[in-house]
Amino acid sequence: MTGKAAAGIITLLTDFGSEDVYVGVLKGIIATINPQAQVIDLTHQIPPQNIWAGRFCLMTAVPFFPAGTVHLAVVDPGVGSARRAIAIQIPAGFLVGPDNGLFSGVLSQTPALAAIELNHPTYWRTHTPSFTFHGRDLFAPVAAHLASGTPFLEVGSAIDPASLVTLPDLFFQATNEGVTGVIQAIDRFGNLISTIPAAAVQDRHWSVQIHDQVIPAGQTYGDSTPGEPIALIGSHGWVEVAINQGSAQQHLGCHWGEEIRIVLDCHNQ
Amino acid sequence: MTGKAAAGIITLLTDFGSEDVYVGVLKGIIATINPQAQVIDLTHQIPPQNIWAGRFCLMTAVPFFPAGTVHLAVVDPGVGSARRAIAIQIPAGFLVGPDNGLFSGVLSQTPALAAIELNHPTYWRTHTPSFTFHGRDLFAPVAAHLASGTPFLEVGSAIDPASLVTLPDLFFQATNEGVTGVIQAIDRFGNLISTIPAAAVQDRHWSVQIHDQVIPAGQTYGDSTPGEPIALIGSHGWVEVAINQGSAQQHLGCHWGEEIRIVLDCHNQ
Amino acid sequence: MTGKAAAGIITLLTDFGSEDVYVGVLKGIIATINPQAQVIDLTHQIPPQNIWAGRFCLMTAVPFFPAGTVHLAVVDPGVGSARRAIAIQIPAGFLVGPDNGLFSGVLSQTPALAAIELNHPTYWRTHTPSFTFHGRDLFAPVAAHLASGTPFLEVGSAIDPASLVTLPDLFFQATNEGVTGVIQAIDRFGNLISTIPAAAVQDRHWSVQIHDQVIPAGQTYGDSTPGEPIALIGSHGWVEVAINQGSAQQHLGCHWGEEIRIVLDCHNQ
Repeated sequence: MTGKAAAGIITLLTDFGSEDVYVGVLKGIIATINPQAQVIDLTHQIPPQNIWAGRFCLMTAVPFFPAGTVHLAVVDPGVGSARRAIAIQIPAGFLVGPDNGLFSGVLSQTPALAAIELNHPTYWRTHTPSFTFHGRDLFAPVAAHLASGTPFLEVGSAIDPASLVTLPDLFFQATNEGVTGVIQAIDRFGNLISTIPAAAVQDRHWSVQIHDQVIPAGQTYGDSTPGEPIALIGSHGWVEVAINQGSAQQHLGCHWGEEIRIVLDCHNQ
Repeated sequence: MTGKAAAGIITLLTDFGSEDVYVGVLKGIIATINPQAQVIDLTHQIPPQNIWAGRFCLMTAVPFFPAGTVHLAVVDPGVGSARRAIAIQIPAGFLVGPDNGLFSGVLSQTPALAAIELNHPTYWRTHTPSFTFHGRDLFAPVAAHLASGTPFLEVGSAIDPASLVTLPDLFFQATNEGVTGVIQAIDRFGNLISTIPAAAVQDRHWSVQIHDQVIPAGQTYGDSTPGEPIALIGSHGWVEVAINQGSAQQHLGCHWGEEIRIVLDCHNQ
Repeated sequence: MTGKAAAGIITLLTDFGSEDVYVGVLKGIIATINPQAQVIDLTHQIPPQNIWAGRFCLMTAVPFFPAGTVHLAVVDPGVGSARRAIAIQIPAGFLVGPDNGLFSGVLSQTPALAAIELNHPTYWRTHTPSFTFHGRDLFAPVAAHLASGTPFLEVGSAIDPASLVTLPDLFFQATNEGVTGVIQAIDRFGNLISTIPAAAVQDRHWSVQIHDQVIPAGQTYGDSTPGEPIALIGSHGWVEVAINQGSAQQHLGCHWGEEIRIVLDCHNQ
């Protein structure tokens, strides 16, 4: 473990949207410090200041990037307050951003090897950073330096990974009759992604209950009649509810955080 | 014809939107397999599962890319069903995606030199791909391999190009009085793009009739008074109706698929 | 001063949106001419044909890019009319686009070292460019050539920088009681960005008056109670009004161009 970024890849996840030039400015900063870096957008459409949504998106994207990737994430309602600016080393690379739980999804799936507080102004854009745009003045410069091979422990002071802010783990519970969870995300297609992992239903016959409606399980969208809801293991690895050529969110009138229940059929295992 | 990608460019066109990390994940996969690839987004705002819109966008973008470009397109309502995963070799490069007609617009303008079914799991992300996200597990890996020079016929088994699914060619018809077509696309500016090619009106005096309104022809938006509709040959090469500093869609209340009629003035040729 | 682009970076700012493939086509053209260019999106969500919004976004992004960067901007309601196609050399690089005032914000902060009219078809995509898409046929090719080191004066004929179209400078005025300006931009977070520069309030105690509401000044969003408006020096360097975990635009019902007033407290300097 050298603590150096190998790939030169930096991903960006923010709630900056695409109407303003905030994201472009991050890329200008990165290109100024590290012209070789390859910058990849994860998304900039996190609902403003929604740490939960950012946490979910990061957690589902990080596993698909090469070793050494630097993931820069800025959903930062506490910018300019006492919340720490941090970087975390994980086996697959580095996480850079505010210490507000944004990375706790990733860290529920992979260990934090080390963590630092970003308090070395040498690696900032300016020694007097803006109070409102740490993405530009701290996080992007640090990510650019990490992606060009600056050793992890040079850009900040070591802190105890156990001290990092975490959001509570998302709820799911196995009972005698099945498994209960909540909707943790709804994607563009209106697919309802639950907190129930594939392992909870593996090799069993099962169906989903939501709003008193029973939804049969299948393998892919095409296993249902167009317009009819279907439950399946989504590409993220969680139980999801979808509608072939339609939106389950609209059809079922569901929201983030609503309960979703798996009914396991013991007779048909 | 070596059957190899020269440019190392991969374009992406999907209906994934920008709120989720699906597009970012495709790029992570590509960067893992082929770190040198240059990835260019065409659009990810194809209306969900609208193969017609994807077909139009691909057809209008492909001609502007360098030889050897790999065009990866995923608008895939039939994912996980019997529809084939395919790649097509064209003179300008390669097309990778589902066999559902998405490429039939491009193929109305350029020949398919060869086609393959993507049935060689060696070039997939995993031998047990997800039932719902072939973009991640099949198409992106294959595109990355093609862009790094893997020979076309290695990533799949040859199929007859004549067997590819096509959508019906878009309607336009010449009559004694003029030419009739439909609105095949409406862009961000509210410009109505018809199915009538420039050649149908070349060097003639003409006007457009839509909803009983007669719209005079001009060369550019500024040839009309702001707020007044004008017909012209759009940059795509089709007759379009626009409004200088306004939206023809809103002004005229038009939709995809509506009829549009060219009146040729024979006396003023 | 060699007049050559060093960085090979091209930024794009347009009102093309992300639903169509217009932006992708620009990138295809650039990749065809200059495969080494690194293309960075500033934004493509400028409201259609809103030169003022484009002017603001460019002005706030250009300072964060490395020397030699080519900034290609297309918000072009006069495309195909008599408006000139231009390029401007500034100390930090180059500006390419229509001569309609889009660059006048940048030029209020940095000098035009030289300017040219783009009338050398050798550097266009085609000698017979479209009447409606100069981005594709003129501006992108010229930007690609500049980014690959073609000397500035080769791609057009010198014009007098004093002849460039400018938009009027944005209003702000110091009075006995304080400073008056207008809202010049509203960002995704609903922050109201005024035309009043930080220097106007430096080291003074101050508050903002807008719609008869007095808003106290602070340093960062967290200095106010969630839901309460706060005035501060934004990351752009202008006075802005924000709401901690909310939208000042929605809360205060404000629009572009509305008056905003700084009250300076002389007793508490």
